[in-house]
Amino acid sequence: MNRNDGRAPDQLRPIVFHTNYLQHPPGSVLIEAGKTRVICAAARVPGAPRWMKEQSVHGGWVTSEYAMLPGATAERKPRPGRIGRTDARALEIQRLIGRSLRAVVALTKLGDNSIYVDCDVIDADGGTRCAAISGAAVALQLACRNLFANKVISGLPMRELVAAVSVGIVDGQPLLDLDYPEDVAAEVDMNVVMTESGKFVEIQGTAEENPFDRPQMDAMLALAEKGIREIIEFQKTALSA
Amino acid sequence: MNRNDGRAPDQLRPIVFHTNYLQHPPGSVLIEAGKTRVICAAARVPGAPRWMKEQSVHGGWVTSEYAMLPGATAERKPRPGRIGRTDARALEIQRLIGRSLRAVVALTKLGDNSIYVDCDVIDADGGTRCAAISGAAVALQLACRNLFANKVISGLPMRELVAAVSVGIVDGQPLLDLDYPEDVAAEVDMNVVMTESGKFVEIQGTAEENPFDRPQMDAMLALAEKGIREIIEFQKTALSA
Amino acid sequence: MNRNDGRAPDQLRPIVFHTNYLQHPPGSVLIEAGKTRVICAAARVPGAPRWMKEQSVHGGWVTSEYAMLPGATAERKPRPGRIGRTDARALEIQRLIGRSLRAVVALTKLGDNSIYVDCDVIDADGGTRCAAISGAAVALQLACRNLFANKVISGLPMRELVAAVSVGIVDGQPLLDLDYPEDVAAEVDMNVVMTESGKFVEIQGTAEENPFDRPQMDAMLALAEKGIREIIEFQKTALSA
Amino acid sequence: MNRNDGRAPDQLRPIVFHTNYLQHPPGSVLIEAGKTRVICAAARVPGAPRWMKEQSVHGGWVTSEYAMLPGATAERKPRPGRIGRTDARALEIQRLIGRSLRAVVALTKLGDNSIYVDCDVIDADGGTRCAAISGAAVALQLACRNLFANKVISGLPMRELVAAVSVGIVDGQPLLDLDYPEDVAAEVDMNVVMTESGKFVEIQGTAEENPFDRPQMDAMLALAEKGIREIIEFQKTALSA
Amino acid sequence: MNRNDGRAPDQLRPIVFHTNYLQHPPGSVLIEAGKTRVICAAARVPGAPRWMKEQSVHGGWVTSEYAMLPGATAERKPRPGRIGRTDARALEIQRLIGRSLRAVVALTKLGDNSIYVDCDVIDADGGTRCAAISGAAVALQLACRNLFANKVISGLPMRELVAAVSVGIVDGQPLLDLDYPEDVAAEVDMNVVMTESGKFVEIQGTAEENPFDRPQMDAMLALAEKGIREIIEFQKTALSA
Amino acid sequence: MNRNDGRAPDQLRPIVFHTNYLQHPPGSVLIEAGKTRVICAAARVPGAPRWMKEQSVHGGWVTSEYAMLPGATAERKPRPGRIGRTDARALEIQRLIGRSLRAVVALTKLGDNSIYVDCDVIDADGGTRCAAISGAAVALQLACRNLFANKVISGLPMRELVAAVSVGIVDGQPLLDLDYPEDVAAEVDMNVVMTESGKFVEIQGTAEENPFDRPQMDAMLALAEKGIREIIEFQKTALSA
Repeated sequence: MNRNDGRAPDQLRPIVFHTNYLQHPPGSVLIEAGKTRVICAAARVPGAPRWMKEQSVHGGWVTSEYAMLPGATAERKPRPGRIGRTDARALEIQRLIGRSLRAVVALTKLGDNSIYVDCDVIDADGGTRCAAISGAAVALQLACRNLFANKVISGLPMRELVAAVSVGIVDGQPLLDLDYPEDVAAEVDMNVVMTESGKFVEIQGTAEENPFDRPQMDAMLALAEKGIREIIEFQKTALSA
Repeated sequence: MNRNDGRAPDQLRPIVFHTNYLQHPPGSVLIEAGKTRVICAAARVPGAPRWMKEQSVHGGWVTSEYAMLPGATAERKPRPGRIGRTDARALEIQRLIGRSLRAVVALTKLGDNSIYVDCDVIDADGGTRCAAISGAAVALQLACRNLFANKVISGLPMRELVAAVSVGIVDGQPLLDLDYPEDVAAEVDMNVVMTESGKFVEIQGTAEENPFDRPQMDAMLALAEKGIREIIEFQKTALSA
Repeated sequence: MNRNDGRAPDQLRPIVFHTNYLQHPPGSVLIEAGKTRVICAAARVPGAPRWMKEQSVHGGWVTSEYAMLPGATAERKPRPGRIGRTDARALEIQRLIGRSLRAVVALTKLGDNSIYVDCDVIDADGGTRCAAISGAAVALQLACRNLFANKVISGLPMRELVAAVSVGIVDGQPLLDLDYPEDVAAEVDMNVVMTESGKFVEIQGTAEENPFDRPQMDAMLALAEKGIREIIEFQKTALSA
Repeated sequence: MNRNDGRAPDQLRPIVFHTNYLQHPPGSVLIEAGKTRVICAAARVPGAPRWMKEQSVHGGWVTSEYAMLPGATAERKPRPGRIGRTDARALEIQRLIGRSLRAVVALTKLGDNSIYVDCDVIDADGGTRCAAISGAAVALQLACRNLFANKVISGLPMRELVAAVSVGIVDGQPLLDLDYPEDVAAEVDMNVVMTESGKFVEIQGTAEENPFDRPQMDAMLALAEKGIREIIEFQKTALSA
Repeated sequence: MNRNDGRAPDQLRPIVFHTNYLQHPPGSVLIEAGKTRVICAAARVPGAPRWMKEQSVHGGWVTSEYAMLPGATAERKPRPGRIGRTDARALEIQRLIGRSLRAVVALTKLGDNSIYVDCDVIDADGGTRCAAISGAAVALQLACRNLFANKVISGLPMRELVAAVSVGIVDGQPLLDLDYPEDVAAEVDMNVVMTESGKFVEIQGTAEENPFDRPQMDAMLALAEKGIREIIEFQKTALSA
Repeated sequence: MNRNDGRAPDQLRPIVFHTNYLQHPPGSVLIEAGKTRVICAAARVPGAPRWMKEQSVHGGWVTSEYAMLPGATAERKPRPGRIGRTDARALEIQRLIGRSLRAVVALTKLGDNSIYVDCDVIDADGGTRCAAISGAAVALQLACRNLFANKVISGLPMRELVAAVSVGIVDGQPLLDLDYPEDVAAEVDMNVVMTESGKFVEIQGTAEENPFDRPQMDAMLALAEKGIREIIEFQKTALSA
């Protein structure tokens, strides 16, 4: 099977991190993964969430919000807030991003602060939630460095990096990093979130049409592992610039 | 490690299906999985969703809604609709239930009909989304038989059964079918949805605190596979009664 | 005129109280009134409502929420919270339940606590609001006993029991405890809430089509009084079990 | 017991109907009942409600909306629509107004039209829902005459007039037409809606604190009957002007 | 060009202020500008808005809410709060009213109080936002005098009066104080808010169809200035009554 | 007075148009005006709005939506859709953008199509609404050319260009194109929208604190006219690239 853009089955799309893309937030990045582009902005909001205080949980919090601009898709996507409808898909994705980031953060080191990482997709071509996670980790680390340099926090809370990639099965063939046409054609779609030390944070595999067997799953996990290791190298390069 | 209720690590909680539990819907069941109880009701709503018609997609649709009664939890849970807040967790779960059911249904055999499977948790003790899926499959099959007998549909659309179970790692030990105290204590929580023929429909593994490695994942999948095979036997018995 | 189920005009449907039906709340009951079934759960929420504090009103509060599961009716009932619409009928009913309970409770004996009594209809066959009131009174008393035994409150706040029944005029004939087909056919529909000591708490009579005269009203009140006295005997039996 | 304004226990407050108070709607009235003032506007909206068409119910519809201006009460009342909260009391009242009007209207004579009767309280001093009903009946009749004169409808659909009054028990004394201070002090509050021919449309009696017995109820009904007969005479005079 | 009602191009409609129109608020007025009628009610709400306290801004606040009754327009206008839609036009207008009032108020003299000026249009015939501003200024001054007399505030905070009028270009002709048919036909519509001392507070000129040039703008400003001077004389008369 | 960035009082900030910035919409631009950056995307949505069809208005429609990303401001700005609050400022701005664009478009040439121009601010440093208008005009023209080339529309509907700039008075000095610190300090703030042919589309001048006189207004208009002429030259260059 030939891929649209001529990639090998186990090949990532070109990935670029434009760090400090925005003027105001302490950490921000524009991540490009092929034609998918996401602005990730990490901002500090003073105070931990109320539920932490009510439950006397010590430390700060990291959360995320995810949205698509109306012009990010081929057909204009109405803004959920304007039409009074909840965007269930966006809520699901932002919960995933938040959990992925918290898995590598020592929340107690944040003090009485919340970090919001806003991921706004400006161009969508598949894999937006994974690009958001990989970009959010970089934005978060930039913000943490910034807050530490300004003595808002007393240590760097990120224990290691985290990144994500999608894998799937298209026409029976396991593929790494699906673009939108591949995503639409996939029988199985799996998003994998993994840490710099090679451990899984989230695995979400879905078969809307054809359930998958164990060997297929193993093949997808192997592709994901390879892809995430490469993405984390790009993150490191971006952060050391 | 001893489990609260003395179960072996690979042992399910007692599971009971009370079929035709409700008066009106064509298919319904009260599923009990240990102390977790969920009412699953499958009802026909005439017409496929509008997006299917707009996109000229042939056939019907299966969808789900999931909610908890306020009295299902130890602390009273406010109703999301009354307080104007979206229950993001519920939306995420009901999307999972819908996908799981559609994976085993031939939608074209539904004709111009939608089936709503409402899953309302009346008692929560962990594993409510998995109990909802296992119960929903039974309610859906009962409804399909009923609609077929009444000639609303011209064939039975379910290709096979589907069920779900949670697995996790508690104190380093992989466990099958977590109850609520185990769920709270788990380092890793994974929900697995599998078909009667042993294929995966959904795998959702999450590590809020400690990322997990590949051997841990393999151990969890083995437990899930064992548990789901047993649940499907209970489903068959309930449906043959 | 013959009733669907062969009852005499002044005869109640069979009524059953399944006490402590739920696992978590301090008081709960599943009430069955013929084919109508309602889960009533009484839970303590710490603190009186804000308006009481703002107005320096001493004591606690009792309130109620009422809803129908989507599968409770012949045609699936959409969830109000999901479709962004207010369920005006439900709001009206839950205000009635709350007033009925407060009429027999010494609020000052609740201390700084609110009791929420959630009434969720799982099967609807007419008379759901009256069944909810009769069941809610039992759930509330069970919860009060439980809170008293656990020293959360220092006395039993319910002065006496309260119950409700519907009466109506169908084909010119006054009838007690209408089921759904009778309710639809009724020219006049009246809900009566009465205390154990035989006093009225609420009388709500409605004639959508044919206004009613005074003798008809007197006949309906007599039926209601008879029915409520019987229901209260069933409540007492359930509470003494 | 002496009433604030020196009225006898069975005496109405002064009642005035300013007909055709507004510029645009086909029927409108400003009703004054003592210091309570309500603008009632009856407007035609083409088409019956969708549910009537879906259920193939013949004829038109009459409905009502009720609200208070923020300045109508001693303490400014926030607008429900602006603060995202439902005004449950208003919904309950407008459903009552709608039912009361429909009880005296031959809906089939409205053709394929809906009549909205908006009742907006500009000054509140107790009894606003009853004033709204008495005023709405006049506005509706004016609108019907207007629509008939303009040949929008082919006959006059109101069979007779309808009006409402509140009665209650204050310090053990049954009183007619409570003003706000009396309403706050009342042990029992009852709203009665009656037709020109002396039949009941709605009876809503509520005892938040002290349940009431049958003789008290009979005394209140007698007062209400007297009051409504007088109000209907004022309505007739206003309509014959 | 002849105007509908025979006015000269630079002539206002008849304007009347009915002061203390409502029973409860400390300041209120019913303003009539031709057939447009608006109830303006100025009420004190204790406390400044939260944002002022958070930003340690000293003094009180003046704000406004604007709405139309459903019966104010030729076609019934649905209530925004009931249909879950935001009324963007109303929000825009009430922000304008609030800014206009604050431009002539010494907020520090209000102490820790907010004044809400509610402007509810009961009859709309063009120019409702300008009538609302001219009426709101009178209601606010009445309320300030009242609060000062009752020692709620320690000085009169309004430095001078403020009023507003619409001007426009219809068939190439600049006109003062457009009524609704003129407003619909206008190529350019401009609302001007000016103080008693002849300075501009707001100028909002809009050309939906034909952009306008500088001489047209100068002509409109001259008309507005003349009109507002006249309105302010009527305000003074009303306030000295 | 010296400006922060050393500009002359009548000098614009550097302005750059990055055309075709997005992948999917037929017209898009990233406009930079100093440190303010706005993504403008013009997308076709088939069909005119329902109100046009109901009123039998011929042709298409142009509308706009405006929002700020949470990371666009110094303090993180919560998303209005998520917190259930209406962003009144955003609604007001998007109505202004829509009117400005429609003033230069022959709507009948759009056929049965709507064009949505989404303006999303990614970096805010004052003048975002004016930058949005100037950018939206370019995005709209790009989209129109694209739709014309693809024969979706049969002619180019934009009659001429349109642009906007803010002017204001800071410390008594009229200034062109305020940045955020100047905007906060301004006594008067005016937004002017003008066409390529030098006519006004919108003038919105606001004095929250100090009302302004006619000479000040004339000075501001002169600055705005100069600035807009320059911006339109930049638009032309961008469109001829």
